[in-house]
Parts: sequence; C-alpha cells; structure tokens
Amino acid sequence: MLKMSRATLMAAALIAVSATAQAATDEPIQPIKPPANINLGMVELGKKLYFDPRLSKSGFISCNSCHNLSMGGTDNIPTSIGDKWQQGPINAPTVLNSSLNLAQFWDGRAADLKAQAGGPIANPGEMAFTHTLALGVLESIPAYVREFKQVFGKEKIDIDQVTLAIAEFEKTLVTPNARFDQWLLGKKDALSADELAGYKLFKESGCVACHNGEAVGGNSFQKMGLVEPYKAKSAAEGRSAVTGKDADRFNFKVPTLRNVEMTYPYFHDGAANTLTEAVDTMGRLQLGKKFTKDENAKIVAFLKTLTGDQPSFTLPILPPSTDSTPRPTPFGK
Amino acid sequence: MLKMSRATLMAAALIAVSATAQAATDEPIQPIKPPANINLGMVELGKKLYFDPRLSKSGFISCNSCHNLSMGGTDNIPTSIGDKWQQGPINAPTVLNSSLNLAQFWDGRAADLKAQAGGPIANPGEMAFTHTLALGVLESIPAYVREFKQVFGKEKIDIDQVTLAIAEFEKTLVTPNARFDQWLLGKKDALSADELAGYKLFKESGCVACHNGEAVGGNSFQKMGLVEPYKAKSAAEGRSAVTGKDADRFNFKVPTLRNVEMTYPYFHDGAANTLTEAVDTMGRLQLGKKFTKDENAKIVAFLKTLTGDQPSFTLPILPPSTDSTPRPTPFGK
Repeated sequence: MLKMSRATLMAAALIAVSATAQAATDEPIQPIKPPANINLGMVELGKKLYFDPRLSKSGFISCNSCHNLSMGGTDNIPTSIGDKWQQGPINAPTVLNSSLNLAQFWDGRAADLKAQAGGPIANPGEMAFTHTLALGVLESIPAYVREFKQVFGKEKIDIDQVTLAIAEFEKTLVTPNARFDQWLLGKKDALSADELAGYKLFKESGCVACHNGEAVGGNSFQKMGLVEPYKAKSAAEGRSAVTGKDADRFNFKVPTLRNVEMTYPYFHDGAANTLTEAVDTMGRLQLGKKFTKDENAKIVAFLKTLTGDQPSFTLPILPPSTDSTPRPTPFGK
Repeated sequence: MLKMSRATLMAAALIAVSATAQAATDEPIQPIKPPANINLGMVELGKKLYFDPRLSKSGFISCNSCHNLSMGGTDNIPTSIGDKWQQGPINAPTVLNSSLNLAQFWDGRAADLKAQAGGPIANPGEMAFTHTLALGVLESIPAYVREFKQVFGKEKIDIDQVTLAIAEFEKTLVTPNARFDQWLLGKKDALSADELAGYKLFKESGCVACHNGEAVGGNSFQKMGLVEPYKAKSAAEGRSAVTGKDADRFNFKVPTLRNVEMTYPYFHDGAANTLTEAVDTMGRLQLGKKFTKDENAKIVAFLKTLTGDQPSFTLPILPPSTDSTPRPTPFGK
C-alpha cells in the first residue's frame, strides 16, 4: 500500500519541480526540450534496427510494429500482438519521450532505454528471437557490419552496440512544441479558455501530483487503484515483480500524458478506450473524485493540448540479407 | 501449355521493344522513368492509408506490413502472415515499380493498382476486414474526412477514393537510377566486366524473352515450368484461376527483376532463397539450360545492378482515432 497521502505526493512533486533550475515557468509541467548530445551516426543505425523485422524470429515484427511512430509510438490496441499472434500481457507504452522516464516498462524493470531494447527481441511472447540469433543476422549483412564498425569502431557487433544504437535513436523521439508548451513559453493565446480551465482542474484536483514534469508523468511509480481498487483486465501486478515486495503490488510507472490523444487505449491493461473514460476512472480510483461531465470535458480538452511535433524522418531503407543470412522462420519450427 | 517456342517469344519481345519509340537504347531493357502526372495531394493521402493498420480487422496489419518499403516493397518471407498469423498461399510480390505491370497479383486477377488495393483489406486471410468497416473507421476520423474532401471534393468517403489514393501513392514507388540504367543511358563504366558479361548471358540465353522492358518483367504471363515441371510449395495454379482455362494452369505473371537483390525469396511460392538458386532453377526449368557456376555468378552480378533508388519519403503520421472510431479486434471475435 502506498503510504503518502495525495497532499504529500503533490507537495513532493512541487518540490521536485521547483528544484529544476532550468524550468521555463513556475508550472508543475515543463516544456519538452529538443534532444541534445546525440550521436547522429548512431541514430541512423538505430533507426534501421528499430524498423528491422529481422531482429524477430518471424522476420515480421520490428520495434516499430508495437511502438509505431506513425501512431504516437504505440500500437493503439489494448495489448500487443507477438510472435504467432500471441496476446501480450500488457499495453505497449509509447516510445515517444520515453527517454524522460525514470525507468522503462510499466514495472520499471529496465533502468534505461538501452536495457529495455534487448527485452522484446528475446521475449518468446514478443519477437521470440535470441540475442545470439539476432547478431548472427546482422553479422551476415556487410552493410550492417560496415555501419556498426563506423559507429562503434569495433571489429565485431555485440548486443550492447545493438541496444545502444536503438536507444540513441529513441532519444530523438521527443515531441516538443505542443500547444501547451507554447503556452508555457509565453504564447498566452495558445490555449482556449476551456483548455486552460481543464489545466486548472488538472492541477487543483491532484492529477498533477503524479503527472508532472517534462513528460507529464513517467517520473514515479504509483499504485493503480489508490482510493478504490482497480479491476484490471491484465494479471500484471507491476512493481512488485521487480522488487519482490508485497507493498509494491499494483504499483506501476505513471505513464506520460504527452501525446495522450494518440496513445489510446489507456492504462496498463489498455481497458479505457477514450480519454473521457480514462479521466473518469482516474478521478474516482486515484483521487476519490467524480468529475462532472463539464469538468471531464475540460480536462480532456487540456490533455489534447499535450500533442507535440511528432518525430519526422525519412523511412529507413534496410540493407538486404545475403546468401549467408539465416532466414526467418515465421511458420512452424 | 504455352505454344510459342523460346525463339519466337524472344523475337516477339524484341519486336515489342523496338516498337517503343521512347526507348533510350536498342537494348531490350529500358531505363525506369520517374513518375509523371501525379496528384501530390492524393499521394500524401494514399501514403497515410498505405501505412494505416486500421484498415485491418486487427489494427495491426497495413499495406506496408507485407509490402514493406524499407525492404524492397516485400516482406522477405516465403509467404505472408495474415490476420491471426494465417499463412498466405503465395509470395507477396514487390510493390516497387508495380505500376509497370500489365496486371496485378501473380495471376493478374486485378487489372490495375486501384483494383488490387481493395483486395487485401477484405481478404479474410490477409487484413480480414471489409470495405464497409474500413470506411466506417475513416469516416469517424475528422482529419481523414477533411483530407478526402480536399483531394476528391466529395461529401462522403467511398472505397473507390480509398483505393485510388493508395494506387496514386504506389505509382510514385518507382526505382530509377539503377547502375544498369546509368549504363543504358551512356555511363559505360557503370557496370563491371563481369556484370556486362552477365547481361550478355541474360540476353543470349533467353532470359530476356520474358524479363524485358522497363520493369525487366511484369509485362506477360508465362508458364512456370516450361521445359521441366516446377514442383511448387504453393497450391496456386496461376492464371487459370482467372480465365478458367486449363491451358493457363501454372501461368503466372513474370515478376519484375528490378531490385531483385532486395525482393528475396523468389518465385510465386518463395521457395528460392538466393539469386544463385533462382537463376539455376530458371535456367533449367524455363530454358532447358544448366548454367555453369561462373555463368550463374555473372548473371547474378548483372541482376544486382538492377537495384535502383528506393522511394524516399517522410514516415507519415496518422490522424488519431476519435471516441466514435470503431476499435480494432485483434483477438477473439
């Protein structure tokens, strides 16, 4: 059970926020900053790997299959489809702005994007491959071998290089310039009266206790079902799977609300199809508050101002397999 | 059974070629021309639709899933993966340069790209949706409604607009500027001696009888297994399924050899993993000729000069679903 009260949580969040020296404003949400210190060669390599389904057993599933950059960095279905159409246990979180998360996966079991990137490749329910087999594919393709050598300066490709390159590409997937950020940065007519009223409700009702900072979330673990238990469609128990502590049951990483208009359906089980439903459930279960229809609509209007510039890049062209490249096994075997 | 001899076929092809007034050279293969008379607004809309998995029942499969523009416009597996991981009956042909085909699908059952585009959406083994349901999704998304209206000037979206837009995008997917085309256009050092020797063998052995023109194929139906029967892994019988004529059994559209280095595996059943294997099989079964290892290598070297500039464009961002958009049903139902 979570011990801090909502007021304490909110105060803690506000303290954390005021400690951020570069904060553009005194608001508990900060504008998204463009990515910095990016290795462009590594980004280009990582982009290819992100789109390459040959990192899966079937040759059909890439990172982009479930974290689709045409669709808010998600797959927009409740739980993902894995190898042989296996049903995933949990909703695919957006990859957008994921570099801002305190940890990766809903339960935070990966410390960072690099640690995350290796997971799905070797997960039998997702890409169903192994790191060794994935490396075998990459090493059989001269254009990849050359590009890895150019980026990392090593003779041999290893899984650390693969996950580092994917993570470097993912660091570029931030979404600055949302209308809300324009407002934060001084463009006072960037938001309508209803949207501003929604933001006020969002702050005063306590949503901002957990959904704050640059990503409007992603910086703490919180219990799903704080005031009232959540009847999840997923068997996942969250953070306790990592810490082994009973007190961490149903604690999940607070999802970012950036681009939330695009990242439906909502919650770790993907059970809420609409923002209206998600706001209603959150109000009741986390805050013990039943928003009126008008309040709900205003909060939803505010949330839709968090959609930022989507990553814009040329679809990568993948180097072809060679005669010696192991072929994917989509069926049987 | 095909009645014309190989020599007759070859002569016919050469006559057809010399009749093409704009041919850049006297060679039986012509350079790829850049697309002309393109409606750019329609292309942008068609690009979104091409990448939109909401045209499938599961919300997971788009045109790009099996005709992946990162991978030569194919999926690089023998037969495709459809809804619920169903195994497709036939190899996904490349979408690249498909506007140059005399008809679409291996059996030519669609007259053009527009007629083709509606097929997979409603095929229970592929995207497993219906045209009506797909239109329902599109009409629930205001950004799509606006864009269709802008492009087509009509009040309501219909399936003809959908398939027309996808086809218009596909018309842009040509791959000019292959090294072979540079050679055709006068850059005599664009090919190595081996590649040129391979081209000479390709012409003199009779390959060019069927693989000619701008697309190096795609402009006739021919029997697979002309001299020696082909033991197919696919039950598909080709053209006879369209014409109902027994004489058309095992007649398939001759595939384009443009970008063939990228479009593995080969043949309508995807049974040949490498170009070496494909050239050997074609020589024996279609021409009654066993190429030596050296001849085979030279022909393969020539074929690899047919890889052109791949389509280069920004990954489209799809307009999000709304509260009223019907949700995909990836599992059950």
